[in-house]
Amino acid sequence: MTLTALCPGTFDPVTNGHVDIVQRAAGLFDRVVVAVVENPAKEPLFSVAERIQMLREALSGLGNVDVESFSGLLVDHARSRGVGVIVKGLRAVSDFDYELQMAQMNRHLGEVETYFVPTSPRWSYLSSSLVKEIAGYGGDVSRLVPEQVLRRLKERLA
Amino acid sequence: MTLTALCPGTFDPVTNGHVDIVQRAAGLFDRVVVAVVENPAKEPLFSVAERIQMLREALSGLGNVDVESFSGLLVDHARSRGVGVIVKGLRAVSDFDYELQMAQMNRHLGEVETYFVPTSPRWSYLSSSLVKEIAGYGGDVSRLVPEQVLRRLKERLA
Amino acid sequence: MTLTALCPGTFDPVTNGHVDIVQRAAGLFDRVVVAVVENPAKEPLFSVAERIQMLREALSGLGNVDVESFSGLLVDHARSRGVGVIVKGLRAVSDFDYELQMAQMNRHLGEVETYFVPTSPRWSYLSSSLVKEIAGYGGDVSRLVPEQVLRRLKERLA
Amino acid sequence: MTLTALCPGTFDPVTNGHVDIVQRAAGLFDRVVVAVVENPAKEPLFSVAERIQMLREALSGLGNVDVESFSGLLVDHARSRGVGVIVKGLRAVSDFDYELQMAQMNRHLGEVETYFVPTSPRWSYLSSSLVKEIAGYGGDVSRLVPEQVLRRLKERLA
Amino acid sequence: MTLTALCPGTFDPVTNGHVDIVQRAAGLFDRVVVAVVENPAKEPLFSVAERIQMLREALSGLGNVDVESFSGLLVDHARSRGVGVIVKGLRAVSDFDYELQMAQMNRHLGEVETYFVPTSPRWSYLSSSLVKEIAGYGGDVSRLVPEQVLRRLKERLA
Amino acid sequence: MTLTALCPGTFDPVTNGHVDIVQRAAGLFDRVVVAVVENPAKEPLFSVAERIQMLREALSGLGNVDVESFSGLLVDHARSRGVGVIVKGLRAVSDFDYELQMAQMNRHLGEVETYFVPTSPRWSYLSSSLVKEIAGYGGDVSRLVPEQVLRRLKERLA
Repeated sequence: MTLTALCPGTFDPVTNGHVDIVQRAAGLFDRVVVAVVENPAKEPLFSVAERIQMLREALSGLGNVDVESFSGLLVDHARSRGVGVIVKGLRAVSDFDYELQMAQMNRHLGEVETYFVPTSPRWSYLSSSLVKEIAGYGGDVSRLVPEQVLRRLKERLA
Repeated sequence: MTLTALCPGTFDPVTNGHVDIVQRAAGLFDRVVVAVVENPAKEPLFSVAERIQMLREALSGLGNVDVESFSGLLVDHARSRGVGVIVKGLRAVSDFDYELQMAQMNRHLGEVETYFVPTSPRWSYLSSSLVKEIAGYGGDVSRLVPEQVLRRLKERLA
Repeated sequence: MTLTALCPGTFDPVTNGHVDIVQRAAGLFDRVVVAVVENPAKEPLFSVAERIQMLREALSGLGNVDVESFSGLLVDHARSRGVGVIVKGLRAVSDFDYELQMAQMNRHLGEVETYFVPTSPRWSYLSSSLVKEIAGYGGDVSRLVPEQVLRRLKERLA
Repeated sequence: MTLTALCPGTFDPVTNGHVDIVQRAAGLFDRVVVAVVENPAKEPLFSVAERIQMLREALSGLGNVDVESFSGLLVDHARSRGVGVIVKGLRAVSDFDYELQMAQMNRHLGEVETYFVPTSPRWSYLSSSLVKEIAGYGGDVSRLVPEQVLRRLKERLA
Repeated sequence: MTLTALCPGTFDPVTNGHVDIVQRAAGLFDRVVVAVVENPAKEPLFSVAERIQMLREALSGLGNVDVESFSGLLVDHARSRGVGVIVKGLRAVSDFDYELQMAQMNRHLGEVETYFVPTSPRWSYLSSSLVKEIAGYGGDVSRLVPEQVLRRLKERLA
Repeated sequence: MTLTALCPGTFDPVTNGHVDIVQRAAGLFDRVVVAVVENPAKEPLFSVAERIQMLREALSGLGNVDVESFSGLLVDHARSRGVGVIVKGLRAVSDFDYELQMAQMNRHLGEVETYFVPTSPRWSYLSSSLVKEIAGYGGDVSRLVPEQVLRRLKERLA
């Protein structure tokens, strides 16, 4: 049996914390699908195509990882891809409540399971929105995001 | 002494979780007033009149429940209606912090008590905003909201 | 309909925080029954009889409050007394998780509802065990417990 | 690649909540090893042999599940069994903090990952210790534990 | 060695809770700098100049407190002012997660420490946004903010 | 003005997490007093004298740090030593609730302030009790405690 894990997210942009979660999932599951949410309600800094490109660059060393986008319900996408399990990183208690709600709802909607994996302590305070805020003020995020993301952040926020 | 409980909320739209809380309160208190907040700052999916209508349909079997709207401060409304206690459902810890803050403030402002009742486990992951999001993507919310709400959601989001 | 609320607890000893919760419940419900848990597994500082006596002294001004003890399951006691609702004070998030678990279990076991009322901010850091610890080291707990409890604490810990 | 998940616990006794987690893990992973902790510091109600027996009876319908005991460090046991991932159920925020600490420590000690899966809402208030307490007072736990566990609980607590 | 503490915030407007935190910090540290965030993304009720003015009036009795504004990264401002420590009030668990994330990030960015001091229980339910909401509905916030703030709130919201 | 911070704890034994908190406090405050609690109710692994000795060895490089023991109430000890502020590390939300309660109580008892500083992410999952448990099972704690503590742990648990 091939076991595929789905790692959904906005990834605007991908951080070292995201990379860590995907690397660890790729070491465990046969295949990992990283799925970039196309959310028309939010105004992202990077387009879906840019976000996919940055993820592919950051994860290029992992042979069993695919990056793609999806719109609509996560459970519908998971079922259409034959995915058995959604994998999400958990940083803090405030993540927990919301993510637990979504996980229970996704089981209700489609019998899709969500497994949570704790974020590495060194990335526990990291989020895409914080990275954008810091970079926007000229702060140094070079140790928080992959190299290619750093370059694009500088271009975009220049 | 007649003991009236006030169940305030946005109810945009009412869910099975709301119905459960009101039913349980109506089994305990002499009278329950369900009060729909008219909040000019938020853009609801349904008008106040529609929300009241859906609540009345969903709660029509309960003889000691009234549905009405209010604007302004909750404590002012509670006092003007001679209400002794506000009753709210509590789902999760993230609810708790905010609701506790509001309860303490309402005691400060008007000596009105807030009593919290735990949401039934089966509705613990349910919220109006999640229902709207799922229905907006064509997901099946038929087991999460009353029948009349389901019909209106389909019409509105078509 | 007479609405009776049950306030269960160990009350070893009763604090100003407990008195505040019972007073507020007595202002709302027709009748309040304060029920002292007889727990053979714990070694209390005061006997059940002493705890009941201190509660009666502290609550003597409230005409619609009874104090009694019970052993066994809380839901069995609630049903045998015709009680419609259990009322508990909530101080902090760490209370919340445990109390929510007990409330859901009590609904499962006996269809008895639990309503939570937020502790007044001024007693939010108060607990019987902390009072005993401080008094045991000779600290001043005179503003934290009723006068009669203070006297008994001094006698017991002398 | 065969992916084995380890479900550790005290299981004193196994509850319907445990069974649910193991069933769901068994539907996802190639093999599940349920590992009963032999903890000399705690005084369990049931011996390790009895706990293993009850687990085997409750999980007999699952062909890819083994039940065994272990003593010592969980990470040592996981490595000796060639296990890639520890799977644990998460009920509430108070679980989360402790379990997150253990998961981070286990990664530090042995590069063993822990994945958390949310407990089904209907078992969210269930724990072995609460089951024992209720059964000890003669309460009805028949819907909370497997049939064989119910029988043994009655014998043991008679 | 002179030890300066930085108290950053939006202060839109300053509340009695803020005043309490600054007073207590001023009793401990040699000097306290209150720093009003100029955040172009948010639409405040009061301008930075008004917020500074209200803070200076409310804190006029404290000889070792300065009020100023800053834009950009907090850590850059702290370093440029030779500040050793950021001091923040903590009210509730929901504060804690976010503030902990910011504190860890600020250490990462600039080796600036953040110390948290618990809000006094009597102000534990108080926030600037809640004050504005209540005052906007004509509620009485006279015991929640300094006198000068009360006057300005009435003018602004008239 | 000389500003002294008090770092209380059981330190049974001191871990790298404790050392980190004391080092950071010693870089900020004029003087730091590390105070080992003599708690007759708990059975520690190391005596007070041993715990003081290990702390002194681990903190020997810091010129402005004293290590001592105390019994009785923390606030009494703080006042007798002319200490202005208690400094404590905060790891997680479960710490927060208890520590907040203690901090509020200590302000009530003696007008002594408690400042909380977030534990470094890399030690966020570390505690003395977990170190003892792991070392007791022969696990490797060499990166979690100072060298001298490691040696003593091996001797004691041999």
